[in-house]
Amino acid sequence: MNQEIKIGLFGFGTVGQGVYRVIMSAKNAHASIRRVCVRNINKERDIEIPDGILTDDADDIFNDPDINLIVEVVDDASASYRIVTTALKKGLPVVSGSKAMIAVHLPELIELQEKHHTAILYDASSCGSIPVIRNLEEYYDNDLLLEVKGILNGSSNYILSRVFDHGEEYTAALKKAQNLGFAESDPTFDISGKDSLYKLIIITVHALGVYVKPEDIFTYGISSIHDADIRYAREKGVKIKLVAQVVKVCDSKFTMFVMPEFVEPSRYIYSVDNEYNGVVIRGECYDRQFMFGKGAGGLPTASSILSDIMARRHGYRYEYKKMSYIDTPAYTTDVILKVYIHYETTDIPGLIEFERIREMYTSETDNYIIADISLRDMMRYRQLLSAPDVFIANIPVFFLDKDD
Amino acid sequence: MNQEIKIGLFGFGTVGQGVYRVIMSAKNAHASIRRVCVRNINKERDIEIPDGILTDDADDIFNDPDINLIVEVVDDASASYRIVTTALKKGLPVVSGSKAMIAVHLPELIELQEKHHTAILYDASSCGSIPVIRNLEEYYDNDLLLEVKGILNGSSNYILSRVFDHGEEYTAALKKAQNLGFAESDPTFDISGKDSLYKLIIITVHALGVYVKPEDIFTYGISSIHDADIRYAREKGVKIKLVAQVVKVCDSKFTMFVMPEFVEPSRYIYSVDNEYNGVVIRGECYDRQFMFGKGAGGLPTASSILSDIMARRHGYRYEYKKMSYIDTPAYTTDVILKVYIHYETTDIPGLIEFERIREMYTSETDNYIIADISLRDMMRYRQLLSAPDVFIANIPVFFLDKDD
Repeated sequence: MNQEIKIGLFGFGTVGQGVYRVIMSAKNAHASIRRVCVRNINKERDIEIPDGILTDDADDIFNDPDINLIVEVVDDASASYRIVTTALKKGLPVVSGSKAMIAVHLPELIELQEKHHTAILYDASSCGSIPVIRNLEEYYDNDLLLEVKGILNGSSNYILSRVFDHGEEYTAALKKAQNLGFAESDPTFDISGKDSLYKLIIITVHALGVYVKPEDIFTYGISSIHDADIRYAREKGVKIKLVAQVVKVCDSKFTMFVMPEFVEPSRYIYSVDNEYNGVVIRGECYDRQFMFGKGAGGLPTASSILSDIMARRHGYRYEYKKMSYIDTPAYTTDVILKVYIHYETTDIPGLIEFERIREMYTSETDNYIIADISLRDMMRYRQLLSAPDVFIANIPVFFLDKDD
Repeated sequence: MNQEIKIGLFGFGTVGQGVYRVIMSAKNAHASIRRVCVRNINKERDIEIPDGILTDDADDIFNDPDINLIVEVVDDASASYRIVTTALKKGLPVVSGSKAMIAVHLPELIELQEKHHTAILYDASSCGSIPVIRNLEEYYDNDLLLEVKGILNGSSNYILSRVFDHGEEYTAALKKAQNLGFAESDPTFDISGKDSLYKLIIITVHALGVYVKPEDIFTYGISSIHDADIRYAREKGVKIKLVAQVVKVCDSKFTMFVMPEFVEPSRYIYSVDNEYNGVVIRGECYDRQFMFGKGAGGLPTASSILSDIMARRHGYRYEYKKMSYIDTPAYTTDVILKVYIHYETTDIPGLIEFERIREMYTSETDNYIIADISLRDMMRYRQLLSAPDVFIANIPVFFLDKDD
């Protein structure tokens, strides 16, 4: 597709308007936006847009023979699924930023691309402006990769930064994140760890060539963090960050999860604050590489969308090469983690069988336990661990032997 | 080239042996090393290698019809030039790590690629394992890019770290860097800023689509750093780093130079220590992105070579797209910098005409001046500034108006 790119844009919120602005001002992009499909055509918008561009009828885009690329930044997973599958089935390439939809439907999207000889690019779906997907797909395209670990959600990181470094109240910090446009329309999406989870699923496909379903991955957010946890972390000289990770535990197996983590000052992600994202890629030979940048917000995401649009101009598509490797590693939850569990009324030590209890603290108001537990058991006790008086954080010591 | 890759390897030093090890152990690379050409076939080596692989005759590689990729990691720019041009003229693709050769001959190498329908990839030439070139070429492939700035030389950075953070003597630190294999065979290459310069030239071609000759770029190293400079920087709470940068000063112009710089703690590159490299990519919309990793050493460089080999398997080549942009920006030295100049016997204030003198300090042993000067004048006074009693550091305040 080395011709002029004529875009049909779905979604005109913060990101959509960012995309519009960026493309209209990019001299060398050889791209223009022909139509923009929105839910409510009469909504007041802060952006100047020529007559005849806006529509509320998707068919105005799908039936326009001039449009040769769909850009989809709709904040609604099922609408996004309809748009993307319709486009792919028509052989129209898509650039999308919809992590939730992509993470859930990736196997089908890969099939559709193959069947209809077209492509969907979605670097904007993970870590906004940081080119994580493209680098995993193209540059870390070899056997050396051992781990991808990072802060993938800007808004929960912003909240933790405010709470942790500035002593603000959790709810005040959340409100601020929403006002600044960092939080998704439904904040639980960010705070529950789901947003990080979806990004991690996409990353894992491009890192190790394996797709794992969301429900099979242990995901724990930050909504039940207590003052006592923040105090505890401060005393230990660490920060609490919401960390997503996929790690090879041996040649043939890997594990993955999203969980708050005690991060020591010597770690790269320790200094990833506010709405920033940071990703550490670890491999044989090159050890650790660190990529850092703005992970949320309209313009950073739009810049990533623009990179994918430009890549389509040169016919770029993901090859999902790692999926066809001789031995792709298998997903396992059979690993032991060392965790901190705070609780008040839930009887954590009585109800959960731990591999080993290392420390226990009880007081009149708060209690915590530091213990070894398998990830498989954490999945099993998910319900119990999600009680509002409970908060868990991973204490990274990869990976415990039983006698450690 | 989606077939098995059969490699003819030139050079078998630290990097060459790293490449050999990495390729031989990469299960999914579909690549093998058929012949290795060395200068001295009888030299003792620490690596097991089957009979019939080593040769000292380049033609054993060039005349082998099975070999379909040349990997060239020779530590001698003119030998490297002969190998690479011979290969390209035969239509053989090349993966190279020879920054000095590439930086000097890039325009010719681009022509040869086009003429002989083949490709040379050289991500390993800039920042070892960090995928800077590939990202600039592919991902930051748009008008948004404003600046690339970083620590591109691991060995001078290692020396500065030892001197600066550990109070070691300059010569002891240099010796240590050489023993650890971070320094090139000729250490002046690293210390004079030349290594950084060559990388910066390559980066600029992929960042802005413009080639600038080495001799037209102001390059100042760290060999004349004095205790007084280190003391001064410490008192001001900054570190001295050897920084290479290319910066757009307006829509139609950019500047570039390599110079020691006072780096404040709030800057990303402040924490890039020892043999690490770190690159900040700044652009409209996404603001700053930071990439960080091992920039020197055999295995990190070998991992980058492996990425380029894998990319060739999928027919990847640099398109040098930005060189064909409507308006590529023009290189200028007509910018004002604020600099610190230390001197002892050379009469800096008497011999150099500054735009403005901001501070002046004289004592019985050391003197310094803080002044504004145009980059063009710094080029003009190059000879004078390279006196052993003189040391310059940039104080970043982009870009001074004359009345600032």
